[in-house]
Amino acid sequence: MHRFQRTLAGLDGRIDTPAPVVVVDALQRNIDRMQGFADAHGVALRPHVKTHKSVEIGRRQLAAGAVGITAGNVGEAEVFAAAGFTDVFIAYPVWPSGTKAARLRSLARRIRLRVGVDDPAAVAALADAMGDEPERLEVVVEIDCGGRRSGTSPDLAGELAREARARGLLPVGVFTYPGHGGSAVEARERAARDQHDALETAVRSLEAAGLAPHVVSAGSTPTAAYSTGGVVTEIRPGEYVFGDLDNTRLGACAEEDVALFVASTVVSRQVPRQAILDVGTKALGREGNPQKGYGAVAGGDAVLTRLNEYHGFLAVEGEAPAVGTVLPLVPNHVCPVVASFEELVATDADGSTIERWPVDARGRLS
Amino acid sequence: MHRFQRTLAGLDGRIDTPAPVVVVDALQRNIDRMQGFADAHGVALRPHVKTHKSVEIGRRQLAAGAVGITAGNVGEAEVFAAAGFTDVFIAYPVWPSGTKAARLRSLARRIRLRVGVDDPAAVAALADAMGDEPERLEVVVEIDCGGRRSGTSPDLAGELAREARARGLLPVGVFTYPGHGGSAVEARERAARDQHDALETAVRSLEAAGLAPHVVSAGSTPTAAYSTGGVVTEIRPGEYVFGDLDNTRLGACAEEDVALFVASTVVSRQVPRQAILDVGTKALGREGNPQKGYGAVAGGDAVLTRLNEYHGFLAVEGEAPAVGTVLPLVPNHVCPVVASFEELVATDADGSTIERWPVDARGRLS
Repeated sequence: MHRFQRTLAGLDGRIDTPAPVVVVDALQRNIDRMQGFADAHGVALRPHVKTHKSVEIGRRQLAAGAVGITAGNVGEAEVFAAAGFTDVFIAYPVWPSGTKAARLRSLARRIRLRVGVDDPAAVAALADAMGDEPERLEVVVEIDCGGRRSGTSPDLAGELAREARARGLLPVGVFTYPGHGGSAVEARERAARDQHDALETAVRSLEAAGLAPHVVSAGSTPTAAYSTGGVVTEIRPGEYVFGDLDNTRLGACAEEDVALFVASTVVSRQVPRQAILDVGTKALGREGNPQKGYGAVAGGDAVLTRLNEYHGFLAVEGEAPAVGTVLPLVPNHVCPVVASFEELVATDADGSTIERWPVDARGRLS
Repeated sequence: MHRFQRTLAGLDGRIDTPAPVVVVDALQRNIDRMQGFADAHGVALRPHVKTHKSVEIGRRQLAAGAVGITAGNVGEAEVFAAAGFTDVFIAYPVWPSGTKAARLRSLARRIRLRVGVDDPAAVAALADAMGDEPERLEVVVEIDCGGRRSGTSPDLAGELAREARARGLLPVGVFTYPGHGGSAVEARERAARDQHDALETAVRSLEAAGLAPHVVSAGSTPTAAYSTGGVVTEIRPGEYVFGDLDNTRLGACAEEDVALFVASTVVSRQVPRQAILDVGTKALGREGNPQKGYGAVAGGDAVLTRLNEYHGFLAVEGEAPAVGTVLPLVPNHVCPVVASFEELVATDADGSTIERWPVDARGRLS
């Protein structure tokens, strides 16, 4: 019996499905392990809250030793600031459109706020947004280390930082995201080397501009293991708190460390060798492909081969489980699962206790 | 200039991005057009609220003449019942796991509630869930017309309905979903013919069982045009209220009838022939593929070729628009967009007025 079957047995009859279930002991071990890794390598941990969007989990990360949090947008930062978090890095090239200028100014007055920047026009817009208090906003220059997404060239980082300082903003360092690693270990190691090289170049560029970068920020869950050392001062993994099938496939988490599953009920079994589960794209997102499937029953070989909005097509060997059977489904990618629900069911390995943790920052996308 | 550019110009500075923007005139025309179609063909319209999850839009559908609404799960039904909707069909093989038995009973006491059923075990479970008031729950037998998802064989519909009646439930008819049509018009017409054949067989099966089916429910937005006539008494389209690129490609909506776009800001332009928009999978879901892309700028050829969670990769000819440029993005599939946000920005074609409509039923997945 898979450990999640035991958890589900304990929860029997007390939760409606579909529901994202967090096994708190496993979650806490993941939090402590990543903190221990960061401590052992002398880098700060600034976890990305995009994965959990949960004040409760963010507090556990801080309690374990995280220096602050990383957010993906202003709305997430606001939710955590309102909950008492005082150090937030929006690792994104924020553009103050709409009412974001006022929102950024208000946030920067209350907490230590850092935002990413990769364009001179954004430097000017952020400085304008801050009115007569530009020095309250810390900016971190985003550099590209090979992902070809956002981020300026590493050797231009100093120039952009100097422009920021000239406009009164507070340039504090550089960051990057080695998203070009792909799935092979060698490719991720190579991407992490690219990351180190790019960050070193960027640090020299800032120093040449007369600036002392005290933030040199790297990494993600799949590359965290390769992201310490050299000039790096902090890492920003997110998905490590829960893990998922994609991270397991990458070797970035062990199967036994996965801390979240989706409790799913068999609702139909009319087609041979197929069970329909009450999890579709509304619960899982369309994360996967026909080859690897869209999620799998924990500890078994049964895979979702297709998703409709409210229906998951589970391929089964032999006879399908009876309708009403509740199964623990492990998603390919955990982030969209959390963002789909209003709350997480938090329990212990035996499913004996139940707490409900709101997904506080869900839907806060701007 | 595309009409959505005009809307955006009117909204300038008053909304943060990303934001789902509904042009209310276009929405209302879509509501009225589908109602007119149903009226002209003598079928009832019971729109699926999965697309909008919005009490405001549901009310507009009822005001136009819809007989009630279709929901995808108990949580959606509860939200609309709490808002005063009195006739809800959960077109899904509901299994009363967890606290759903009590929730179903409570709902069925307050409104006319219909649920789908395709399995004798579910009939028994639903009857048990209803305690001493099984007759308050209307059941509609789901039949399979070729989609091979859920639904019993049409010629077994009568047997299942008889079991429901024997358990005291109130069998009222049959429904199906012709999801096997694919994208070609001929294929969808064939699927709609399959639907008619299957529904006729099911109606005969119910009549042979001594039951008079007064609900014979069909259709979806892409098949609505082919779903009237014969035994059909109602249709259940959902996506027609907004439309999207997928429905435009299918010919199920005209480009000028699309009523929702996502206001998106260019946040980075560091890579030649590429702009990064602030819309990723968190806002759009991962709906698309590398061939057709993941969404497109309205009225132009620029397509999102790739999505990260907070980043959309827009391929552009020549120079990328400046950072800060706001673009109207039309999604491939509108449903996950709505479910990603807390509220819709409702405006007129000129972007002069702004209302905020909550996505009332979002996150209510069980």
